[in-house]
Amino acid sequence: MKNLLIASTSTLHDGNYLEYLLPELQLHFAHCKTILFVPYARPGGISHDDYTLKVKSFFTLLNIKVNGLHEFSNATGAIEKAEGIFTGGGNTFLLVKQLHQNNQMQILKKVIENGTPYLGTSAGSNICGLTMQTTNDMPIIYPPSFETLGAIPFNLNPHYLDADLHSKHMGETRETRIKEFHQFNTQPVIGLREGSWLDVKGDQIVLKGALSARLFRQNQEAIEVESGSEMGKFQ
Amino acid sequence: MKNLLIASTSTLHDGNYLEYLLPELQLHFAHCKTILFVPYARPGGISHDDYTLKVKSFFTLLNIKVNGLHEFSNATGAIEKAEGIFTGGGNTFLLVKQLHQNNQMQILKKVIENGTPYLGTSAGSNICGLTMQTTNDMPIIYPPSFETLGAIPFNLNPHYLDADLHSKHMGETRETRIKEFHQFNTQPVIGLREGSWLDVKGDQIVLKGALSARLFRQNQEAIEVESGSEMGKFQ
Repeated sequence: MKNLLIASTSTLHDGNYLEYLLPELQLHFAHCKTILFVPYARPGGISHDDYTLKVKSFFTLLNIKVNGLHEFSNATGAIEKAEGIFTGGGNTFLLVKQLHQNNQMQILKKVIENGTPYLGTSAGSNICGLTMQTTNDMPIIYPPSFETLGAIPFNLNPHYLDADLHSKHMGETRETRIKEFHQFNTQPVIGLREGSWLDVKGDQIVLKGALSARLFRQNQEAIEVESGSEMGKFQ
Repeated sequence: MKNLLIASTSTLHDGNYLEYLLPELQLHFAHCKTILFVPYARPGGISHDDYTLKVKSFFTLLNIKVNGLHEFSNATGAIEKAEGIFTGGGNTFLLVKQLHQNNQMQILKKVIENGTPYLGTSAGSNICGLTMQTTNDMPIIYPPSFETLGAIPFNLNPHYLDADLHSKHMGETRETRIKEFHQFNTQPVIGLREGSWLDVKGDQIVLKGALSARLFRQNQEAIEVESGSEMGKFQ
């Protein structure tokens, strides 16, 4: 049975890294002594080692050991044997390129479908959708495909941001961008605000956190969906 | 001799479409009775026809007739024969995909190098850089390549936005994104604020408009460049 936490962000403005998710993570990774960390998204371009260290440091609070996927010569085996997996945020293009290039997207998909507990934040959440095409990230590198894990029958827009009605800036709002996406693509998109996450257990996808999410479907007006809602009915 | 106006935006917050550029465009297209419009970026997903109508309406002020590139059965011929060319804004992924797919990127590059007056706004400006990898747009469609016209030896970031120091939003700032780009790419990036444009005459690239631009180079601190500066020295 699928078992994922798909979080909009790793860090709230007034908090420390993963802090707001701590109680959830204690439950989510309760049966894990070690987890495998996928550091490929490299926020700010930091190294795989430095990124993994940051994650190791957090998980000592839960008494869980962390290994970086880049540390294994047999990465496929590491994914297959992982007790739990966490993919951190950063740049989604970089993450997706590396996963495709290393032939790890399909293996990751398989173990997630088989029930390995998975945590994603930001870019690591983006890849849980059908494609990465509703990322906010800059295309700093060219991936061989935009396809991602499809662990949920949606696309995601993490760090979802409402339009600033006082802004004089003429760049597109997030809502406009997602509407443009729906001119060419059919899958629904969940705009996941910071502090929100999806709790996936099998086919059940429940919105968690204090805020509502914004749901975009092709040829329909966007709607607000309250926290606690089962999202599966909107697919 | 190359002759381009590369503008950050088509429209200022308190103005109408292309209005702030009117005096420049009168000079830029002084010798044109007609110009060819490239409508592929389709802002908000509007049709090629509707987008072209909007542009036609503006250019009647200058007594210039506008034809949409999509109206021609022989598009290559239309580009080669054009007295002037304007590529409008919208989604850069869509624009670049269409130009590559139709084998028009190289022809456009050739006529620009040969001196056909060119105007770009937003996405239409992005493609004047070496690659589209510093666009702000959402990857709503997968292009066969990120390479663009390379009419200037830089990449561009149109609608450049300074960090909002009061924001509680945890998404990356524009500066952080461009720094990530430079972890993997060497070309300098010009952050072009709204109301700014580059005036390209041959090898001379002059920053115009009221504001300074922000220049990002690999392994260097970003700097502010004043309006009126010759940008070529920063390549």
